[in-house]
Amino acid sequence: MIIDAQDRRVLNERTQARSGTTKERLEAALRAVESRMNNIVDSDVDVLRDASRHIIGAGGKRLRPRLVVLAYLAAGGADVTVTVDPAAAVELVHTASVVHDDINDHGILRRGRPSINQLWGRTFALLAGDYLFTKVYELMAPFQDMNVVLAEATVALVEGETMQAAAVKDNNFTSEVYAEIIARKTAALFRSAAEIGARLADATSTRIEALRTFGFNVGLAFQIVDDILDIVGDEASLGKTAHLDVEQGRGFAVAHGSENGDDVMDSIKQRLLQGDTLEQARLQATMLVESAVAQLDVLPDSDAKAELIALAHATIERTA
Amino acid sequence: MIIDAQDRRVLNERTQARSGTTKERLEAALRAVESRMNNIVDSDVDVLRDASRHIIGAGGKRLRPRLVVLAYLAAGGADVTVTVDPAAAVELVHTASVVHDDINDHGILRRGRPSINQLWGRTFALLAGDYLFTKVYELMAPFQDMNVVLAEATVALVEGETMQAAAVKDNNFTSEVYAEIIARKTAALFRSAAEIGARLADATSTRIEALRTFGFNVGLAFQIVDDILDIVGDEASLGKTAHLDVEQGRGFAVAHGSENGDDVMDSIKQRLLQGDTLEQARLQATMLVESAVAQLDVLPDSDAKAELIALAHATIERTA
Repeated sequence: MIIDAQDRRVLNERTQARSGTTKERLEAALRAVESRMNNIVDSDVDVLRDASRHIIGAGGKRLRPRLVVLAYLAAGGADVTVTVDPAAAVELVHTASVVHDDINDHGILRRGRPSINQLWGRTFALLAGDYLFTKVYELMAPFQDMNVVLAEATVALVEGETMQAAAVKDNNFTSEVYAEIIARKTAALFRSAAEIGARLADATSTRIEALRTFGFNVGLAFQIVDDILDIVGDEASLGKTAHLDVEQGRGFAVAHGSENGDDVMDSIKQRLLQGDTLEQARLQATMLVESAVAQLDVLPDSDAKAELIALAHATIERTA
Repeated sequence: MIIDAQDRRVLNERTQARSGTTKERLEAALRAVESRMNNIVDSDVDVLRDASRHIIGAGGKRLRPRLVVLAYLAAGGADVTVTVDPAAAVELVHTASVVHDDINDHGILRRGRPSINQLWGRTFALLAGDYLFTKVYELMAPFQDMNVVLAEATVALVEGETMQAAAVKDNNFTSEVYAEIIARKTAALFRSAAEIGARLADATSTRIEALRTFGFNVGLAFQIVDDILDIVGDEASLGKTAHLDVEQGRGFAVAHGSENGDDVMDSIKQRLLQGDTLEQARLQATMLVESAVAQLDVLPDSDAKAELIALAHATIERTA
């Protein structure tokens, strides 16, 4: 039975996650998160199971579950296995949203694989995204307080995605609107990941607040860099359809490259690549990361804190 | 401030819901559910608020919240105000699913109004459905046990919708597949509604199980009658695009009217209306309702129990 084998694997990985160095515990927890995600989406409805495992199996950076686990450890949490289900839930919120994104954006490539929309068609992509949202709900059902936190972040994510679509439609993609969009569609979930890790460790309210702000700022920086890479990156290294944001008149490029969002892609790209706008965006992301790292002063030094700082810096140093 | 006025109205309606006859308490609770739904979907993202209130304001039978409240009262619950949030959540699960249904089915009429898909377009309909799902999550976050129950029902609902789409695609719409689909896409949520009401009243496990089964059987009967009405009804009285199910090769009509689901609508309708298939389906629905009502023997007689029995019978006697 596939399920039994999976359950055993999750148990083994969770047991390993209790001991070892910080790095070993982090990696064991993240392996358990992978198993848990694959396990929870099992279904006798083949297309839901297969499409879910297709997108989960494609990988991704797993920054959000990483944040849950590291925030937990940095806040003094002792048994990292308690982070597995919430970390899997946070990653599945993100996964559900990209599945639905690929419907609305006609994205055909995601994490180096064809999108669910591309492989199974729109109807099943819509239902697979819904299914992943219901699995978040199922995973989190036993966690009362954490549920309130993740529900708020999930609401914010959908609001951010909607503000983005509305800004494109209304031709109203200003810098201010851009800032509000990335706060909701990306930074709120990063914030909830760090908050959930901190709460699971029974951290003080000062430390919870510091880790929340850390997550939020890292999320903002991550999205700004993502939008920069969407302009300067290529599909092979990004693993997803590039330039979608600019083609669809949204994202950093449009907010900063034009006043009214109706420029065509080539002229936007040309202006951004020639001017110093991209350099300014990188600077903004760097300042957000510095500000995030400064929040961690309230935490004692630890390997987990060092890993959080490294994660923050990696966010802006990546090329894909 | 609109929010303040709404909050006051909810409070007033909840207070009224504490006293009066069973019918008065039921109606007061249902008014509070309406306010709560309108209240929880408020957002500074106009399209999410407007689209949500458009579909909520269109009404509907409110069978699921009615089941929550009546199961609570029939199981001996004293303060019906505690049912308001879970009842609103159950109705919003259903509402979210019809919003996404109307995308996949190209339904242009829903509850007598143009569908969200028709008015705001596919992108915003997809996001509005996601938004309603996140609001379910937000409403239920404080209810630990009930969350597990509603999460399971929500997973089943998405599985049922997917099985239906897959059965049409694979040309495999047999009676057995039809039975499994309606169990998951409709009856599971009815079951969870009755279970949540019973659990909120701290009912014994015998009574919880009886009300669960009552809800499940009523849900099956409701869907069978819905599929019958989709064949014999007209749009004006149904309030939604009729014959969609048959046109798309799914539902009762296809399961019972053809062996392989590739008949055209006219010939299916003709066969069903001439033969005794529809009569058999009505008989099946009637037996399910009788079986549901028999479950209530474990409950003491009460006005609420009588209302539950009336609700069950109304399910099969309706013409729209």
